[in-house]
Amino acid sequence: MSNSSRILNTKLTERIMSAKQAASFIEEGMVVASSGFTKSGDSKAVLNALAGRAASNHFQVTLMTGASLGHGTDGTLATSGALALRLPFQSDPVMRTIINEGALMYIDENLSETAAHLKNGFLPSIDVAIIEATLIEADGSIVPTTSVGNSAIFTALAKQVIIEINEAVPLEIQGIHDIFLPEDATGRAIIAITDVWQRIGQCSIPCDPDKIAGIVFTNLKDSPADIVSTDPTTRAIARHLLDFFEAEVNAGRLTRSLRPIQAGIGKVANAVLDGFANSEFEHLTVYSEVLQDSTFDLIDAGKLDFASGSSMTVSDVCYARIFGDFEKYKHKILLRPQDITNAAEVIQRLGVIAINTALECDIYGNVNSSHIAGSQIVNGIGGSADFAQNSYLSIFVTESICKGGTISRIVPMVTHVDHSEHDVDIIVTEQGLADLRGLAPREKAETIIQNCVHPDYQDMLSDYFTQACKKGGHTPHLLEMAFEWFKNLAETGSMKKKKDPVTTMRSSQPVYQLFS
Amino acid sequence: MSNSSRILNTKLTERIMSAKQAASFIEEGMVVASSGFTKSGDSKAVLNALAGRAASNHFQVTLMTGASLGHGTDGTLATSGALALRLPFQSDPVMRTIINEGALMYIDENLSETAAHLKNGFLPSIDVAIIEATLIEADGSIVPTTSVGNSAIFTALAKQVIIEINEAVPLEIQGIHDIFLPEDATGRAIIAITDVWQRIGQCSIPCDPDKIAGIVFTNLKDSPADIVSTDPTTRAIARHLLDFFEAEVNAGRLTRSLRPIQAGIGKVANAVLDGFANSEFEHLTVYSEVLQDSTFDLIDAGKLDFASGSSMTVSDVCYARIFGDFEKYKHKILLRPQDITNAAEVIQRLGVIAINTALECDIYGNVNSSHIAGSQIVNGIGGSADFAQNSYLSIFVTESICKGGTISRIVPMVTHVDHSEHDVDIIVTEQGLADLRGLAPREKAETIIQNCVHPDYQDMLSDYFTQACKKGGHTPHLLEMAFEWFKNLAETGSMKKKKDPVTTMRSSQPVYQLFS
Repeated sequence: MSNSSRILNTKLTERIMSAKQAASFIEEGMVVASSGFTKSGDSKAVLNALAGRAASNHFQVTLMTGASLGHGTDGTLATSGALALRLPFQSDPVMRTIINEGALMYIDENLSETAAHLKNGFLPSIDVAIIEATLIEADGSIVPTTSVGNSAIFTALAKQVIIEINEAVPLEIQGIHDIFLPEDATGRAIIAITDVWQRIGQCSIPCDPDKIAGIVFTNLKDSPADIVSTDPTTRAIARHLLDFFEAEVNAGRLTRSLRPIQAGIGKVANAVLDGFANSEFEHLTVYSEVLQDSTFDLIDAGKLDFASGSSMTVSDVCYARIFGDFEKYKHKILLRPQDITNAAEVIQRLGVIAINTALECDIYGNVNSSHIAGSQIVNGIGGSADFAQNSYLSIFVTESICKGGTISRIVPMVTHVDHSEHDVDIIVTEQGLADLRGLAPREKAETIIQNCVHPDYQDMLSDYFTQACKKGGHTPHLLEMAFEWFKNLAETGSMKKKKDPVTTMRSSQPVYQLFS
Repeated sequence: MSNSSRILNTKLTERIMSAKQAASFIEEGMVVASSGFTKSGDSKAVLNALAGRAASNHFQVTLMTGASLGHGTDGTLATSGALALRLPFQSDPVMRTIINEGALMYIDENLSETAAHLKNGFLPSIDVAIIEATLIEADGSIVPTTSVGNSAIFTALAKQVIIEINEAVPLEIQGIHDIFLPEDATGRAIIAITDVWQRIGQCSIPCDPDKIAGIVFTNLKDSPADIVSTDPTTRAIARHLLDFFEAEVNAGRLTRSLRPIQAGIGKVANAVLDGFANSEFEHLTVYSEVLQDSTFDLIDAGKLDFASGSSMTVSDVCYARIFGDFEKYKHKILLRPQDITNAAEVIQRLGVIAINTALECDIYGNVNSSHIAGSQIVNGIGGSADFAQNSYLSIFVTESICKGGTISRIVPMVTHVDHSEHDVDIIVTEQGLADLRGLAPREKAETIIQNCVHPDYQDMLSDYFTQACKKGGHTPHLLEMAFEWFKNLAETGSMKKKKDPVTTMRSSQPVYQLFS
């Protein structure tokens, strides 16, 4: 163990212990806060030890993180019954099932808000924070690893801090973190970022050495991001979007460097970023949550000048590439706390172009990003509303159909609203793009039905809209028919009227499996 | 006409003309932008002349304003067929009917966004701006009257400007306006307000004198605000909310001066502000859109230190009181552009407590502020989302039932979502208060049903929730039953199952009349 190079405060070396010992500080009913944002920089040892300890001692805790944890951790904690409450985000299939069964309470929060909710006393106070670190500075401050997430606020508010020093993370990562802790609302702090590359904080997370209860050494890589290759559908969506940007440049509303881009996780968002690599756009910038493979591909392609995010979540191949020549990337990226990457004032000031994936849209431009059939959660709202509400352009992408066409992702009325029509400017499917800017609801419906809907469902939606208009209204709906398609889906396995014995069998599966 | 005291740029006196002459500049298909925010500081002569001109010449225009116009103006324009498109807000019963019939396109926008949408080129460019003024400075700049709204951006972007100098507005109003025009998003402007009383702009709206095409003199008061007296229901809601604030103070989360308050228009919000007058709270501040009678009552009661808004919309009595002793109020109020009063960054930085009225809430805390039965618009979203999304506390108030109990304002699933559960912290009815902070959806449902629902509907909602939970989900719903109550309402005139011949007749009226 090269303690000396990873713990610059020698007094703290006494606190080195095993994950099991560290986990033993955690008792029944405690509130545990952990680093980790979309699988990166998460606790890889202590949380798993906690799962075992909680199972054998039959107790439960509250767990809050930055976002989702690495492979299996959330699933292990959930199956071991270790958790009574989870927030603000998860994306584990096992945990999802237990949440949907009502056996685990889940507060699905806008990712920008957890820090403020903690500072304002709207959430239970933190007993133990578990933070993955590259090293501990002499003053006790913590240099994070591949994500920042909520680690800074967790460290500031926790009674005790457990640090996981991950020796798999190269020391050269030091310097890419920008830690700024805005004061509480009464503190009147301006988040003075006026350019994506602007640094406003320090390189490490301040931490009182006396609060550090344990230090655990690990040597484990982050769970890699899945490599999602593009396909004709996602490439078609990307094409429509790139054509739109081209037209905006020609109309004089955008330049070839566009504006800072935020892209959610998902194969469609990935395809769009890939599309930029072979486009005429240049000097692009990213102001997003997660820096993915595509971010570094664009840097390599000489298209991307700078990327600001809260985590690096990349594939093994990309990870090796980045740290094989880190100097090349080091001065082109910054990792910040998620209440800074997702701050309304910065997103508005920079004029971010937000590209997020919709699970379901309706004809008036309302978007559902989180729930299946109004009830079953998939992951959560994540940062999508932080960006959709405050961006210069709020774009939602989705394939027009799924499950072999038995489900249309564009429906008369969404069964759950995460983003109202007021926060949605553009909807893109492989069929085409609907530009909703400056349109009234009835005009939005015509545009969406004409441009985005799959041919199999176009007549059905037109009929609904026509009948609804006969009944009237600013946003014409027929409540008695609004959810009929979901009734068909549940009964026949398809939103289309006609029966289909094959798909009927499917309908006995949990509904979200029909989508995922 | 005391031109000399109202037009300090003598060259401009040549442009004095009648409202009819001024209206003659406006042609078929033009985009007209007018001052006016919740009935205050609106065009009182030229828009009405335009209605006549458009009717006789059979042409239509687009009309954008700050918010709603004074008594009848929107109604007159709508009935005269003068308008093809209206934005971003209206509250006129006649216009509402025509919008719901689909005969007039209406873009119901977040009030903070119109200025940005214009600057970004997302809306048609403005041909003629009509701005009510107290006076014109020597440099051509315009001193507004009782509202600012979007007047600054309209003046900046319009090809031609028509000014209505209203001699009914005392000259001493000069100095209460704070005009700040943030640059477009690429301009990277920080809106550096860190206290409600902080002035960041100038006292008048910059205007190139050469753009001033006409000056019309008027002597007409703003349409007065209706005096809405409190009743047992609104007083009960206010009581619950004041008790909550008291508890927050005792818990150490708030001080006796709370945080800056935003209150929407409506009898409930009014009752809450009235409640403060006889409370133990002191040194209150307001950071809101509309300064209403209650604002000035609180100043008189010595409870309110400062109020920032975009308009003064008060009763005749209050108006007389204010301008009878303006020195008393002049240094305690500021009127700003609506993209500043409703700016996300300022609302977040100040930690505003937002109190808005819900038309309908559901058991999971989603709020509908704009539509009846999912289709018929009442007014619009206004600024409610600007505040709900960014406030320290987002509070929605509503009576639990209306129309003699035939309608419950708390339903299984709202028929239209303006504010998702993520943007709603507190719901209050005369029955009680539901504190949704730190709760998962199922916990929110239990809290809302237990505290806010009218006894007549409590069992019905509990049954729905229980059945939905049996089916499962993070946010349990039964799509086939979600809107059954609205089916009952349409069929029987009541959300309750049992038939009622009297109310059945009602159901033949337009649905929104059942609510209004």
